[in-house]
Amino acid sequence: MPTTEENVSIDRISSDLKELAKIGRAEDGGVYRMAFNEADMRGKDWLEQKMREAGLETRRDGACNLIGRLPGRDPEAPALLIGSHIDTVPCAGILDGTLGVLTGLECLRVMKESGRQPVQDVELFAFSDEEGRFGGMFGSQALAGLITPDTIHSATDPGGERLEDVMKAAGLDPWEALQARRDPTTIGGYLELHIEQGPVLSADDLQVGVVEAITGLFKWSVTLSGEPNHAGTTPMIMRRDAFMGVADFAHEVPRILDENGSERSRATIGRVELSPGSPNTVPGEAMFTIDVRDTDETVMNELAQATRRALEAIARRRGLRFSYHVDSWIKPVTCDPELVWCVENAAEEEGLRYRRMESGAAHDAQIIASICPVGMIFVPSLNGKSHSPAEWTAWDDIEAGAKVMLGAIDRLAFRS
Amino acid sequence: MPTTEENVSIDRISSDLKELAKIGRAEDGGVYRMAFNEADMRGKDWLEQKMREAGLETRRDGACNLIGRLPGRDPEAPALLIGSHIDTVPCAGILDGTLGVLTGLECLRVMKESGRQPVQDVELFAFSDEEGRFGGMFGSQALAGLITPDTIHSATDPGGERLEDVMKAAGLDPWEALQARRDPTTIGGYLELHIEQGPVLSADDLQVGVVEAITGLFKWSVTLSGEPNHAGTTPMIMRRDAFMGVADFAHEVPRILDENGSERSRATIGRVELSPGSPNTVPGEAMFTIDVRDTDETVMNELAQATRRALEAIARRRGLRFSYHVDSWIKPVTCDPELVWCVENAAEEEGLRYRRMESGAAHDAQIIASICPVGMIFVPSLNGKSHSPAEWTAWDDIEAGAKVMLGAIDRLAFRS
Repeated sequence: MPTTEENVSIDRISSDLKELAKIGRAEDGGVYRMAFNEADMRGKDWLEQKMREAGLETRRDGACNLIGRLPGRDPEAPALLIGSHIDTVPCAGILDGTLGVLTGLECLRVMKESGRQPVQDVELFAFSDEEGRFGGMFGSQALAGLITPDTIHSATDPGGERLEDVMKAAGLDPWEALQARRDPTTIGGYLELHIEQGPVLSADDLQVGVVEAITGLFKWSVTLSGEPNHAGTTPMIMRRDAFMGVADFAHEVPRILDENGSERSRATIGRVELSPGSPNTVPGEAMFTIDVRDTDETVMNELAQATRRALEAIARRRGLRFSYHVDSWIKPVTCDPELVWCVENAAEEEGLRYRRMESGAAHDAQIIASICPVGMIFVPSLNGKSHSPAEWTAWDDIEAGAKVMLGAIDRLAFRS
Repeated sequence: MPTTEENVSIDRISSDLKELAKIGRAEDGGVYRMAFNEADMRGKDWLEQKMREAGLETRRDGACNLIGRLPGRDPEAPALLIGSHIDTVPCAGILDGTLGVLTGLECLRVMKESGRQPVQDVELFAFSDEEGRFGGMFGSQALAGLITPDTIHSATDPGGERLEDVMKAAGLDPWEALQARRDPTTIGGYLELHIEQGPVLSADDLQVGVVEAITGLFKWSVTLSGEPNHAGTTPMIMRRDAFMGVADFAHEVPRILDENGSERSRATIGRVELSPGSPNTVPGEAMFTIDVRDTDETVMNELAQATRRALEAIARRRGLRFSYHVDSWIKPVTCDPELVWCVENAAEEEGLRYRRMESGAAHDAQIIASICPVGMIFVPSLNGKSHSPAEWTAWDDIEAGAKVMLGAIDRLAFRS
């Protein structure tokens, strides 16, 4: 167990956060470190320098994941990986991803200063393009061996720039990402601290979330087709109004969740497009997206089936045609019980207000779970805000999260 | 009463329709005679020539309304106006508006040929910009004295072209439109034949609609504002989902119509825009349009009140802010009982299958009603289609409509 003197310094964490926040910050107050842009690369340079100052051995792998290593006593022992990402969405806040990397840096700095060497290597990762400029989780996917030549060749950003061109412009060889795959036997586990990005901890006045599972999700693009008609001349009973089908479905969503979901289920209609979209025409076609999440894939399957049935019934009732495209199906991840226990035990020992919970958002940990046991620590997001300059976590809570991270590393890396 | 020899010729009507359809028709099969464009002006030239061949005196007023006059015996008697418009929406069919003008032409041609002079002048109008390139009903508004200098100065088309520039390019002086106002005491009534643009006559296998009223309408742009949140991290009960407010309202629409409307009430949500509109974000804001129609302004007021109450209640229940903008409030028009009787009596005498009905769409007659009694005759629209090349009416039904028009003129203009 670390002694008081060996504990994390919130002053150093806040100083690091403020320094990195300057890199890529625009006049609107938002941070613009989108993957592989100039600010993102400059951020990694800054971070590498900080890692070196902390006494870590640094390197970058083929996916431009930046790694700072604190060598362990036993070079054969599978390494403990920690970290997150420092790339951002456009107009981001200063914590998403970055907080996990910088609290990890502080933990390794404290360990290095204390002179106590861990059993296994502890490696601090800043993964590339977690936020999705080119699809998301690029760095962690490369580490897990999930990147293919096709990904590298076809990925483009929302502005149409190609991943290949952007990486080359940053002085990188994109094809090297295929070399970033890490032999799973060399990894013992992965632990990530992240802001919650939701309102749960903040609403319950808790300091730390012990993540048990990361939700899976499916996204469908649904199309309901009826008949476009004149809003004035078409009697209500002679309409095949595609939007009324969407409204019917929205009305069924709470029932579908109640009947087929769990307390962790979520369903969101985030986008609706009506055609022709004219105020005086009955919508002939409606496209909408549905995003459904749960931590249990069996529940996800039941929710998908119930969604399909509801849509089929509505389409029949309203004389509409119904089709859907599965945009994604991401399996949920269960955190490793030992890692969960280490996190919870550390929070308990620090006397913090915490709860076990799920992650509703996707994280690098979800990808890394395909090659090793993973765990996550959440800190509260003020009002649940993220992906905006309004994103914030109280300094006390950041300190609490960093202490839990250090305590968990201690439990994992100093066992004889 | 016209004798059999004096009746309309469907061959001449169809020949005229086919000739005019060539003017402004594009390769996609649609007609593009948008107000004051080259095809629209060429269409009027063609029509003026046809009017002259029929022996009518022609002129254009300051709004470029084209008028063909069959002089009556009594120059002091208020004139009977008939007609519609020949301008079109982009990619139009060949009947909307045009059919009313060309059946009117055929009626006056028959009357001229028969040599029987009406008591009062009968004037055939082709009104300018009914379809709304520059807002709609330009010609009939000018005749009714509803055009102001501001209309002329500020009107633009969807492509941003100014009415002033477009009229000048067509060789017209836009300010002359202010001179087109007609002294109401010089008009005895206005009768318009038009395609139904709805499915009612076609569904009931009827040939003619005797229009009793033209529906009024109100259009609102409604905004519901909640909070944009992460679709994965925000529990269902902590959301303020603006789209779910729209869906709740859509669900109330049938109840609002049942409780507060008439059998002629219609309500349509034609456009929905969600913000930010991302599949994985709970919509923080939803804008939608609602178009509500009825033939009774008292009913319209009750529907507006019920709509407001429903939206207020939904906003309260879901923690949303609610605001709306009244985009338009157009009063309904009741057709003149005498004109309705003349139309109905003519349909009866011809032994046609007809019904009394309302017009759910707006027409020049709605504007002209502000200065004189109006009546309308509908012919069926195949499958209710209009504003598309699929717009069609069977030749038999066109002939039936033209006969009713001639019969109604006869009843109105040949009384001693």
